Amino acid sequence: MNEFSLIKSYFQSLGCPRQDVDLGIGDDGACVTLLPDHQLVVSCDTLVADVHFSSHWAAYDIGYKAAMVNISDLAAMGATPCWMLLALTLPTADPAWLEGFSAGLDTVLKQYQMVLIGGDTTRGPLSMTLTVQGQVPVGQAIKRSGAHVGDKIYVTGSLGGAAFALQLAQYPMVTPPHQKILQHQLHYPTARVAWGMLLREYASAAIDISDGLSSDLNHMAVASGLGACLQLSQLPYHPLLLQYAPERAHDMALHGGDDYELCFTIPACNEHAFLVAAEQAGLLSYCIGMMESLPGVRGLTARGDVVDILPCGYHHFTESSA
Amino acid sequence: MNEFSLIKSYFQSLGCPRQDVDLGIGDDGACVTLLPDHQLVVSCDTLVADVHFSSHWAAYDIGYKAAMVNISDLAAMGATPCWMLLALTLPTADPAWLEGFSAGLDTVLKQYQMVLIGGDTTRGPLSMTLTVQGQVPVGQAIKRSGAHVGDKIYVTGSLGGAAFALQLAQYPMVTPPHQKILQHQLHYPTARVAWGMLLREYASAAIDISDGLSSDLNHMAVASGLGACLQLSQLPYHPLLLQYAPERAHDMALHGGDDYELCFTIPACNEHAFLVAAEQAGLLSYCIGMMESLPGVRGLTARGDVVDILPCGYHHFTESSA
Repeated sequence: MNEFSLIKSYFQSLGCPRQDVDLGIGDDGACVTLLPDHQLVVSCDTLVADVHFSSHWAAYDIGYKAAMVNISDLAAMGATPCWMLLALTLPTADPAWLEGFSAGLDTVLKQYQMVLIGGDTTRGPLSMTLTVQGQVPVGQAIKRSGAHVGDKIYVTGSLGGAAFALQLAQYPMVTPPHQKILQHQLHYPTARVAWGMLLREYASAAIDISDGLSSDLNHMAVASGLGACLQLSQLPYHPLLLQYAPERAHDMALHGGDDYELCFTIPACNEHAFLVAAEQAGLLSYCIGMMESLPGVRGLTARGDVVDILPCGYHHFTESSA
Repeated sequence: MNEFSLIKSYFQSLGCPRQDVDLGIGDDGACVTLLPDHQLVVSCDTLVADVHFSSHWAAYDIGYKAAMVNISDLAAMGATPCWMLLALTLPTADPAWLEGFSAGLDTVLKQYQMVLIGGDTTRGPLSMTLTVQGQVPVGQAIKRSGAHVGDKIYVTGSLGGAAFALQLAQYPMVTPPHQKILQHQLHYPTARVAWGMLLREYASAAIDISDGLSSDLNHMAVASGLGACLQLSQLPYHPLLLQYAPERAHDMALHGGDDYELCFTIPACNEHAFLVAAEQAGLLSYCIGMMESLPGVRGLTARGDVVDILPCGYHHFTESSA
């Protein structure tokens, strides 16, 4: 099959049809209309085989996760996801793989009422770049840089589950159903879109936890010109991590990536209204610390000691000598 | 260097600062504001080393061409280019390469008053996906599908120069200055942005010639539910192609890719106004044929014979058995 029939067969109508798409796949570009008084939010991420995922993963899982981690960036901005572009580089056009991959994408797109509006297919080593676009009311995008001293730090869910899933070979005592739960956490994260949209009104800053809490909270602190102090006893460890590897829970929750929860800050003046709104929306979160003026990320132990927490999430190119 | 210092060193401020960028590089996503009564036009293209360019090319040239061919898609839609995202996958973070590559991008971005607002850097086999975004007044995007029977077919410049540049090894009689001109044509194409913006008012359909006239005109004809007939004697062959390889001129002009001229159709009722406007704008074009109801692309020879022209531009995956 050539690239045109490949696109037609697998990618022509992924996701939900949207009235705001004037022109989708099949032209030099796509053309869409934003809501009045809204701004465009856009993000792109590349996933490379055997760097971001194993090429042995099921194609469905690769498509699912590629879409979800990209949408997670829109969630962190408080944006409503709308349109996606897919640039897919493939060594060969394997119909079974393409069917699985596009089904994974489609599941996620439909979950958020998004649609695939364009992209590119090329031959080469397996990798993909997804560009996701959403919209926010003017001025309501949540930035990393908006936190102030005294703002409370929250996360939207438990931490360390995905990191633990990657280490399962070292923990043969984990039962098969529990293995399944952890692998599900790794392969099928959920972008916290409803959270992001709610947070537009209450949060001063937000980021999604892709590299690990220590790294991502540090990004937010640096962008805001501040530091942060975590109440280590309040960290919401993944329950299976606590059950099977309590000695690793601290490390995996602080430094493990791939959880895709949001970490955000709430100013004191908004906290009551925020808690009420979150409860009404049925959204659970955990308060884990507070922003401070002293740069760096620290943790307060249960015994009252303060320990430095160095950001050590995943970095590309770190091993380069340059 | 890690990916954050890499982005800061080479990509933080590429292109021209723009007032409509609320948030650029450095957050989970970028945030921009469209003009009132405008729609978003978006396109992305991937370039893979040793498929779309030789990894021996100068890094500057790779950056320049990657940016230009993407912007060419916006030109074909009649859009005003505004914002770019770069997803760059690199085997190693080589400072000299990165400096050249980002300088090539920067040159093109500045030429069109665009700015780089986001992207991703990852480690892997050399490739890049650029997402370009522009805007058009509501309803004025030029589609491939808008041509009607009797519309005249135009191109914005000479054809076959880039294809000839790729064959120079077979033509040792080409003088060094002429080689230089042809290589320049291949490495530094020009996206026809001013053309696209003018054509919003006059053209019924447009496409950029990336795969070759025969392929791209065929795409436009198929999208419009029509066919096309070219006056072969009117094809604007690249003058050096005519001088050195007249026997190949026909093939290279019809089927050679990489020229990035626009091919567009003008309804008879617009033709006079179009020609006046183009002349006032100092923009040159060539009328090369007419849209017809009979499907397929044909050519009328100087002797009055009609010959079929099969689309045979570059296709990925065509050699696949699937």
